[in-house]
Amino acid sequence: MITLTTDFGLRGPYVGEMNVAMLRINPNATIVDITHGITRHSIIEGSFVMEQVVKYSPKGTVHVGVIDPGVGTSRRAVIIQGEQWLVVPDNGLATLPLKHIRPRKAWAIEVEELRRFTGWEVSSTFHGRDVFGPAGALIDKGVSPEEFAVEVPLEDLVKLDVKPKNAGNEWLLKVIYVDDFGNVILNLEDYRRPREVELPDFGLRIPYLDTYGQVKPGELLALPGSHGYLEIAVNQGSAAERLGLKVGDEVRARLV
Amino acid sequence: MITLTTDFGLRGPYVGEMNVAMLRINPNATIVDITHGITRHSIIEGSFVMEQVVKYSPKGTVHVGVIDPGVGTSRRAVIIQGEQWLVVPDNGLATLPLKHIRPRKAWAIEVEELRRFTGWEVSSTFHGRDVFGPAGALIDKGVSPEEFAVEVPLEDLVKLDVKPKNAGNEWLLKVIYVDDFGNVILNLEDYRRPREVELPDFGLRIPYLDTYGQVKPGELLALPGSHGYLEIAVNQGSAAERLGLKVGDEVRARLV
Amino acid sequence: MITLTTDFGLRGPYVGEMNVAMLRINPNATIVDITHGITRHSIIEGSFVMEQVVKYSPKGTVHVGVIDPGVGTSRRAVIIQGEQWLVVPDNGLATLPLKHIRPRKAWAIEVEELRRFTGWEVSSTFHGRDVFGPAGALIDKGVSPEEFAVEVPLEDLVKLDVKPKNAGNEWLLKVIYVDDFGNVILNLEDYRRPREVELPDFGLRIPYLDTYGQVKPGELLALPGSHGYLEIAVNQGSAAERLGLKVGDEVRARLV
Repeated sequence: MITLTTDFGLRGPYVGEMNVAMLRINPNATIVDITHGITRHSIIEGSFVMEQVVKYSPKGTVHVGVIDPGVGTSRRAVIIQGEQWLVVPDNGLATLPLKHIRPRKAWAIEVEELRRFTGWEVSSTFHGRDVFGPAGALIDKGVSPEEFAVEVPLEDLVKLDVKPKNAGNEWLLKVIYVDDFGNVILNLEDYRRPREVELPDFGLRIPYLDTYGQVKPGELLALPGSHGYLEIAVNQGSAAERLGLKVGDEVRARLV
Repeated sequence: MITLTTDFGLRGPYVGEMNVAMLRINPNATIVDITHGITRHSIIEGSFVMEQVVKYSPKGTVHVGVIDPGVGTSRRAVIIQGEQWLVVPDNGLATLPLKHIRPRKAWAIEVEELRRFTGWEVSSTFHGRDVFGPAGALIDKGVSPEEFAVEVPLEDLVKLDVKPKNAGNEWLLKVIYVDDFGNVILNLEDYRRPREVELPDFGLRIPYLDTYGQVKPGELLALPGSHGYLEIAVNQGSAAERLGLKVGDEVRARLV
Repeated sequence: MITLTTDFGLRGPYVGEMNVAMLRINPNATIVDITHGITRHSIIEGSFVMEQVVKYSPKGTVHVGVIDPGVGTSRRAVIIQGEQWLVVPDNGLATLPLKHIRPRKAWAIEVEELRRFTGWEVSSTFHGRDVFGPAGALIDKGVSPEEFAVEVPLEDLVKLDVKPKNAGNEWLLKVIYVDDFGNVILNLEDYRRPREVELPDFGLRIPYLDTYGQVKPGELLALPGSHGYLEIAVNQGSAAERLGLKVGDEVRARLV
């Protein structure tokens, strides 16, 4: 199985070109389009989405992510092997999914070598179709990355700064995702269940519960969400709108 | 074959998580994403969409629908077996597709039993990935609902009130769908073909024809549509906008 | 493999109905949804998108396109056989993909004959589900078009006027696509690489380069794009917005 996560949008030929190019290389592939609606160039958002998908995918799944690949720059296209595979630009997109795949090895794709397998020219603008997609299709088919990539040290991969910071009696957190409902997801997991969450920037203290329906419509709550991260929500409303928060914003929080 | 109809939207990880979770349980499943763009919580709209899909699906197809599942409430997740299968919240979503599958039996899913098959925790917020999707994947794979659900009487299932009401010489109808073109679909089918349709609420009398192009651009008409229900349309325009109608609204109509 | 390109949108039942109807006829089909977001009735845009997909598809692929099929008019539904197949309304949609498939034969679908294979009534409004989809599914399955269509001369097919016009020392070009980023794609390919492109209508002379990043953010450039056509872009911005251009607009250009 191969999954695709990009910011290409669904209106143009790009997603289709990428799919048919992959099926041309690997006609029996099962390709799952995760989303092509990542906010343009939002590496954090893409990393969060890929993490959620990795957590529920079977071993051996190949996850292809194309967000801000920096075509025309020196940014590398990398392959990471663990219990599952990642094929992504080396820009931090791998950061969150990496936590769940027990990575063993990484390679940087040699674009010219890849062409031996695809048979078509690599364009200077569309590496989703010409590089990332084909690399994922080849790996899913059983071709070794050694055939078209050179090994690079795992520790050299670019990482996003998404570790929560502890400052005395409070956390300095970051918004890593805002879903379509306006629920705000913060980069804190594996915390001890609090009774309330204080948000000093907003002069707020909100209850920590299990489901949205446990507060009245329009009221704020904190909860574990379906992904394990601390989530701030408004029952039948948008916490992002209420608090004016978007991906990448910093938020101070006290779990009390 | 499994079909998915939800209101999750296409931007986030939800649709992807649900797909990979199902393929993890049933790697050979053919999953067809019908739409994830149902108006949030619109059970009537979801029921109409699922009905259209059921009408053209082969026997044995498993239709998974997740709209307003009421996670955290006492609302049941049910499985209905007929010539095709439905896996839906017990909130009326099954009402319209049920008309076409000759239902024989129904079960309520036992969430804790299901976990034996999935191996992961059931979250308190995302039952699409944790309950409905896995149940559909198991049924498509041939696992009996008896393994993870208890039988419930078919007549206990929640039904939407979408029967057209006859009041003397007119019908009291309900808008059950508005498509992207603004065509308004009403809950009347199997009627005798009229020459005109009178809409007393709007002081209008419009011709009943076969295709949009039979009136001038901008003009109203009624027609059978592609789904068998009475449809009100504007050629190259939006009847919903012209008449100010949305899903759930009531409309009086006389077929003359 | 079958690909689908339409202007149906992703919110309603239409895409789903078409998919399940095709899988009912051909359960083992691999169906790739290219896009259902073509601008409504934009035949040029659809033709451009289908062309890009054809260029990267394997031989034998069946491309189904449904844009402005003129249901209820005398417009024909046609099948074109070459190294790949096209199943489209005879309205010019085939124009650009035709350049890449070495066409050999064409047929016009006999709607009543098709019904022998589908078993359901052909509606007067939804030929995507009732005509184009089933025809594509049958061809992918190996059924000969002779079974449900009559041969028509290739040269009778409707063609779009998308040949670039040379007027003395300048080209009279047409916008054939505007992507989500606002990049403007013009109908000129196989040209000699210029150093600059002059756009006399806008009093502009812009550099011809290889990638967006070679100019400063906000600056205009021309480049080959990933599709071979002349493209006008703004680095990290929208050329369509800057120049006020949309699909179908004419633009004079000098390659200098």
